[in-house]
Order: sequence, then structure tokens, then C-alpha cells
Amino acid sequence: MGKNLTKRSEDYSKWYNELVVKADLAENSAVRGCMVIKPYGYAIWEKMQAELDRMFKETGHQNAYFPLFIPKSYLSKEADHVEGFAKECAVVTHYRLKNAEDGSGVVVDPDAKLEEELIVRPTSETIIWDTYKKWVQSYRDLPILVNQWANVVRWEMRTRLFLRTAEFLWQEGHTAHETKDEAVREAEQMMNVYAEFAEDFMGVPVIKGVKTDSERFAGALETYCIEALMQDGKALQAGTSHFLGQNFAKAFDVKYANREGKQDYVWATSWGVSTRLMGALIMTHSDDNGLVLPPKLAPIQVVIVPIHKGEEQLNAITEKVKPLLKELRSKGITVKYDDRDTYKPGWKFNEYELKGVPVRLALGMRDMENNTYEVARRDTLTKETVAAEAVVEKIQGLLEEIQESVYKKAQEYRDAHITEVDTFEEFKKLLETKGGFLSAHWDGTAQTEDKIKELTKATIRCIPIDAKAEKGQCVYSGKPSERRVLFAKAY
Amino acid sequence: MGKNLTKRSEDYSKWYNELVVKADLAENSAVRGCMVIKPYGYAIWEKMQAELDRMFKETGHQNAYFPLFIPKSYLSKEADHVEGFAKECAVVTHYRLKNAEDGSGVVVDPDAKLEEELIVRPTSETIIWDTYKKWVQSYRDLPILVNQWANVVRWEMRTRLFLRTAEFLWQEGHTAHETKDEAVREAEQMMNVYAEFAEDFMGVPVIKGVKTDSERFAGALETYCIEALMQDGKALQAGTSHFLGQNFAKAFDVKYANREGKQDYVWATSWGVSTRLMGALIMTHSDDNGLVLPPKLAPIQVVIVPIHKGEEQLNAITEKVKPLLKELRSKGITVKYDDRDTYKPGWKFNEYELKGVPVRLALGMRDMENNTYEVARRDTLTKETVAAEAVVEKIQGLLEEIQESVYKKAQEYRDAHITEVDTFEEFKKLLETKGGFLSAHWDGTAQTEDKIKELTKATIRCIPIDAKAEKGQCVYSGKPSERRVLFAKAY
Repeated sequence: MGKNLTKRSEDYSKWYNELVVKADLAENSAVRGCMVIKPYGYAIWEKMQAELDRMFKETGHQNAYFPLFIPKSYLSKEADHVEGFAKECAVVTHYRLKNAEDGSGVVVDPDAKLEEELIVRPTSETIIWDTYKKWVQSYRDLPILVNQWANVVRWEMRTRLFLRTAEFLWQEGHTAHETKDEAVREAEQMMNVYAEFAEDFMGVPVIKGVKTDSERFAGALETYCIEALMQDGKALQAGTSHFLGQNFAKAFDVKYANREGKQDYVWATSWGVSTRLMGALIMTHSDDNGLVLPPKLAPIQVVIVPIHKGEEQLNAITEKVKPLLKELRSKGITVKYDDRDTYKPGWKFNEYELKGVPVRLALGMRDMENNTYEVARRDTLTKETVAAEAVVEKIQGLLEEIQESVYKKAQEYRDAHITEVDTFEEFKKLLETKGGFLSAHWDGTAQTEDKIKELTKATIRCIPIDAKAEKGQCVYSGKPSERRVLFAKAY
Repeated sequence: MGKNLTKRSEDYSKWYNELVVKADLAENSAVRGCMVIKPYGYAIWEKMQAELDRMFKETGHQNAYFPLFIPKSYLSKEADHVEGFAKECAVVTHYRLKNAEDGSGVVVDPDAKLEEELIVRPTSETIIWDTYKKWVQSYRDLPILVNQWANVVRWEMRTRLFLRTAEFLWQEGHTAHETKDEAVREAEQMMNVYAEFAEDFMGVPVIKGVKTDSERFAGALETYCIEALMQDGKALQAGTSHFLGQNFAKAFDVKYANREGKQDYVWATSWGVSTRLMGALIMTHSDDNGLVLPPKLAPIQVVIVPIHKGEEQLNAITEKVKPLLKELRSKGITVKYDDRDTYKPGWKFNEYELKGVPVRLALGMRDMENNTYEVARRDTLTKETVAAEAVVEKIQGLLEEIQESVYKKAQEYRDAHITEVDTFEEFKKLLETKGGFLSAHWDGTAQTEDKIKELTKATIRCIPIDAKAEKGQCVYSGKPSERRVLFAKAY
């Protein structure tokens, strides 16, 4: 009874694509580059949303909603911003269809052309700062701490489920502040919120850092990021938080009367994570048997499968399971009792392994006699027999243990794949063999960064926040450097 | 200290528009017909979403997400459907911008034309049924009970905040069933869920019914609806649930092997409510002083305003209020303590009245001496002095009372505005004077329905579910009729 899942060692990329589809997470749609997020995948995303939303609110943010469309001219108002997004914008030009004259269906009605074309938002800085202009007059109106959960569209030629799709779901925080310091603190705070979420809920260890000039968000003065490492040795940017300076305030003329009564431009941040996090979650923990989910984000934490012949045995098992279900639910544990008779136990075991349910209980006639349960753990694929009276405590313990364990395993892998490199030969060799993050000196120039990317496909993932000062020579140019940065091939 | 709010009796429409903006619920954006939902308005919508989502899940539904874009050709596959939506579709024709040659900014890149134009979803039946084709092979795959929270776009020439906007937020349920009966039951169930939500949470009494042929959803065999009545005597359709028969299954060729092993088309429903509910909520309860919110949907249920001179008095009040805040919060009551010294108590009273906070507590020096609170109730604008030790119980009681009271008040108004009418003269007169629902006989023809609409602007809101058989003559044509239907002018 196999899952027909390609092994990671054979073809990691194929394994990922198959897993996403077979575990019912998402699939491609009829619209190029746009995915359908299936109920099981969406349930994981909802759990992510709920935790992130709570964290945003605890740090003083409120949700709001801004238009899907942006007037084309708005995009041009911030020069770097338009440069970054113009090439991947879906453009609405007309607002009506009409019947084709040859009866072939509907066609775009040329008479219903928009006066100004609209962009489907690739990100909302421009429309939001146009709105903030109306909201801000004085320092009393600041800070504005707003987040939006929304869909955005960036036209991509090569897409992959969750990792890179033309439409994706995300949240985008957009804040406005009195002072530069306050805005910088906000951007740093949100990077820390993202890191905490990734580590404590997703079980994904991340490195906090800042981007280089070339990798920075279009329109930002500083981009803070969290970088994770996948099992194939490639890095994945899991979240970014931008200090935007006064760029958007100037582009949209958002001034406020400061405490001295003088007019000043407002300081800004923006920050976001997206359904890309689903890709990071899947690739960090899963194995050749399917998905492995950290219990805190698992839509089903425990599944109970009865093993029986005939209805009488099933009824007996069900009677035994009922109070257990009730007790687990009263403790906030999500449990599913799968008593469908259209599928056999072996099929179900396989299915829940594929879907990454952290804990599986099975209960057959021998267990009934012995008053025990068979308890299986998804992450280690180990099983044990547990006395019925101890099973609730066992499950609670296991859920905590699995949450910690998947994190530790990912952390050990990640830590074993950060390598200090001092020569370009070694750099190239390691990239091809071991992969992971290469910690190397860099001369600080975009030219060197570009050259290394051209030669190796590796980019500077970040300058780690905690990088200590260390004099050295650039791994490529040999020029002097003050600290090491992290290179990697990346998603 | 006025709110500068137009009175309802002067200009109801103007009152509504002003209230939406002044109470910080929403505002118009730079994009024609698209609104910005401000944090306070969005917080109410989030409360609605949370309750509805819980109700959907309790009735077995799961959330998923489908693409924003629909290939143009898909829309044509169901003939009635395309007829209903073609004239209000935003169309994406290109996917890239480029710099204008004259340096004037960015222009649409003509080389990046899409092979097939994409429609921004006005509703998702077509893209979803194209997906369900892949999900359904056998009766074992049914039912599919899926809901989506999303934005949709219907190009509207005349828009009004929340009531009619080009982009709006909604949920759309799309279910697939083995049998006709099961699908009909689902559509009815969701109408009942909507009615329960409207009455128990929004405090908005609704009439359940079915639409006539002309008012039915494009592509449906039956449209169930809930109809509410606003304070100006106009009706508002607050939610619809459609029995779609096999129309979409046939259009997208979605067949399944039934229990006899034969191929059959799947039966469908779809159902939705939108941010339009915000309009219904606002218009049902609010008054000339501002918003009136039912406590169950109020983002802030209780506000406490200190009345003090100087910091010492404020500190004393704050010390007294702290344990009260804690106790209220422990009981799940959302309470805000507004100790800002940038605004005076009178300004705050005004502000929270405008924003519809159900209960307001004030606490000054005399209250401190007497160990009392001044407790004010938003819906009735009444105040009383309550002993500190009784204040928690008082608040709990008030919140329940206000929830019931706003419903009852709306119900009384609604019931007083359902009038049986038997002559067309009376019909026309009542529409001009009293408004509300006119319960009248109708001959069942679209011609009569159209004629009445043309002459009076009244439409048939619904044929009530509980309409009893009653022989009579059509109020317009005099032809025989079997039951009364409800006419009204509507939003």
C-alpha cells in the first residue's frame, strides 16, 4: 500500500509537487498560475491566519480593507516601486462583455473601455498611502497600525503551488509613524513577530536579517527578513518587513502637524507573509511518506481508527471511543473518529500519514480486551501500546513532544547546513554538494553580488541581525569586508 | 456639541452616507465604486464573519479558495449565467506595463496581451464547477460542502458604501449533491442559517421567501432569500441561497457514478452574504445621533470614560477602574477605558454615541465618593446611577437587554409596515406614503411584475415561505391568484 510518492532523494521538486496535490492541499486551476487551495490546505492556512492575526492584534494592529484595484498612475508615483512591479501587473482595461456577432460566445465590449486602466494590486502601498493622506493631519492621528488580509496578483511565468503563484493570499501591514525611530522599531518588531510565529507554530527555525540593496523591496530603505532552509539545501524567504522611510509619504504627499506645529512627512513601514508559508511548512518537515505537520497547525491533531469486523464490533469500539473523543475535545484537542466503512484501516493509516496527522490511535478487538490503544506518531513513524486510562495524558504529551521535536530536527538540519567558507572554489563546490547557507565575506558591492549570482545562482539571503563584526576578505573579489553574510540558492 | 449628522427625517439617504463616513465605517476610494473599509467598520465585519463561519462549520462546511480570475469562455458555458453577469465584468486583457516613450509614466504593454481575456470573478460558480469536475467521480465523493470568503467585482455605475460597490467582500458557499432533494434541503438550510444570523446576531428581523422567475439568480432554478426592512420603508435583500439544479453540472460536465453504478449529473447549490449586511445593520438600528449596534456585533461593548481634573484624580479613577476592566474582560465583555487627555469627556461621549457603543460608563469625583458609576445606554439614550458592587451584573443584563430590545424595536417597525393591499390605487398610495412591504395578490406573470415595477418602482421581494394559500385577484391585472406575495421598493 504505497503512496506513489516520488522519494525526496530522487527528485525533491517532483516530491513536493506530488505531495501538495496528493495530500489535498492545493492544485492548479484552469487559470494559468492561479491555484485552488483545497479544504485541507485551507484549514492549515486558517490556523496560520488565526495565530498571526492574534499576534498582530496583541501588538496593537487593527484590520481594514482597501481596494483590489489601483489606478495605473498611482503605481508610478514612487519611482523604485513602479520599477519593481510594472512587469508583473495584471491590467484591467474594460468593464463589460457583449455577445459576439458571430454567435461564438462573449467578447470584450470595446465601447466599455476604462478611462484609466486599473492594476490588480501586486501590493497595496500606493492605494493605502493615497488613503492615509485623508486620515492624517496631526501627530494625534499617528501611529496608524493597520493590517489587511487580501489576495494579490503578480504575473509570473513560472509558477509552483504555494511557492510562486500569480494570485496568492497574504496579509500586508501598513503603518504610519511620527518618527523615524518609531517606524524602524515597528519594522523590527514585525520581523520578530514573524520569527516567533515561524519557530513556535510552524516549527521552522529562521534566521533574522536585513536584505542587501539589490534584494530590498521596491521602495524600501531597509528590508528585514526571516530566512528558512528547506531539506534540499535551498533557502526560502518566509517573511519580510520593510522600513519605507518617507518615500511613500512624499510620493502621496502625506504630511502631519508635528508636536511643534510644523508640517512633516510621515514615516512608514509595510510587512507581509503569504501562502508561501505553506510551502515552507510542507518542505521543512515532510518525508517520503507524506506530510508531517506540527500539532499547533494541524487541522486534525489526532485520528482514531477502529479495526473491526462487522457492525457489532464497530458499535462496541464506538461506545468505548465516545467518552475519549469528548475528553480530548474538552481539552482543546482536535480529534477525528474515522468510522467510515467504505475504506479499510490500512487505507486510512496510509491516508492520515500522507496528510500528516500528528497522532493516530487504532483500536481493535485485542485492544478492547486488554483495555489499550495502539498509539502511532507521524513524525517518527513509531508505535506503542498504551493503557486506556493513560491515553489522554499520553496524547497531550505527544502533541507537545512532536511540536518540539519537528522544530529541533529542522534546527539541527539547518545548523548543520550553515558553513563558513573563505575561498570561492570551496564556495562553488559546497553549493553543488551540500547546499545550505554559506557564511562568507562580501565586499558590499552590487557588482560582486551580481557576479556571484551569475556564476553560482546563489544570492545573499541576508546580513544576519546578529552577525558579529569580523574582518576578512570578500570570498569573490578578495576586497576587505567587515562581516560575513549568508549566501544560498533560494526558492 | 452636535454630530453634524443630517436627520433621517430630512434626508435618509444623506443621513446614511454621512453616518458611514463619520462613524469611521468606510469611505470612498480613488477607484470608482471601490470602498475602503476602515478599521472600525472592518471590526464589525470580522465579528459577522466569525459567527457566520462558525455556523457554516457547524453545518458541515469547510472553507477553500478558488482563483480571482475566470477565463472569459467559462462564463459563457451556462447561458442564463452569462446573461446575468456579462454587462458588469471587469476584464483583464494585459499583464505588463512598460515605461511610456514620452517619459510620462507607465503604459500598458501591448506586447503583453493575454491569449484569453480573464474576468475578475463576479461570483465563482463557473471556476468552481470546473474544479469540481476533477473532484467528483463517484457518490462517495459527495456531498462537497465548501465555502469561500473572497472579494468579488461587479461593475456598477451607481454605487453606495456597503450597499452597492464595484468590489465587495462576501462568502460564497458552493455545494454538490447526489440528489435533488439533498440539494434543495441544503439551499433551504442555508437560508435558515442566514435568517438565524440576521435575527440573533444582527438583530434584524427577516422574512424568508423565494424569488420570482425575474428576480432569481442567473442560472438558478430557485432562489431562497431573506428580506429585511429599513427605517425608510425600503426593503433590503440580506442574503440568498440558490438551488441550481443540474445547470452547472451540465455546463461543466460534472457527472458521478451513482449507487447503481450509473452516470448522473451532480446537483448544486450556492449561497452568499456580503458586506451589504453592514448596510442592513446600520440602517436598521441607527438614529440621528449615530450608529446603534447590537452588543453581539459591537467591536467595543462597553466604554469607560473618566471625568477628572488633573493627573491625581485620573490616577485615582484608573485605580478604581482597573479591577472592573479585568472582571468584565474575564466575562468575555469587550471594554475600552478611554483615558486619553487629548479629548474632553463631552467629546468622547459624542464619539461613542456616534460609533454605537452599546454601554457607556462615566466616573467622576462624585461617583468616586458615592462608590457609583453613571451607566448610559446607547439605544435608548437613557442614563442611571449604579452602585459599584452591582455594576458588572448591570452591564451583563444591559448587554442582553439591548440585544433583545433593538431586535424587538426593528420587528415592531417591520410588522407595522407589512400592509395587505387589494387595490392598485391603495398600492400606489401606500408606497408613496407609508412604504414597507405590501402584501398583495399577483397573477404570477412576469408581465404584471414588470408593469408594476415600471409604474411604481416596487418589485416582488419574495413569495414568503409561510405564505398561506388564499384565493384572490391580482392587485394589478385582477386575474386569479393563489397567495399573496410581498412587494416593496428596495435597495
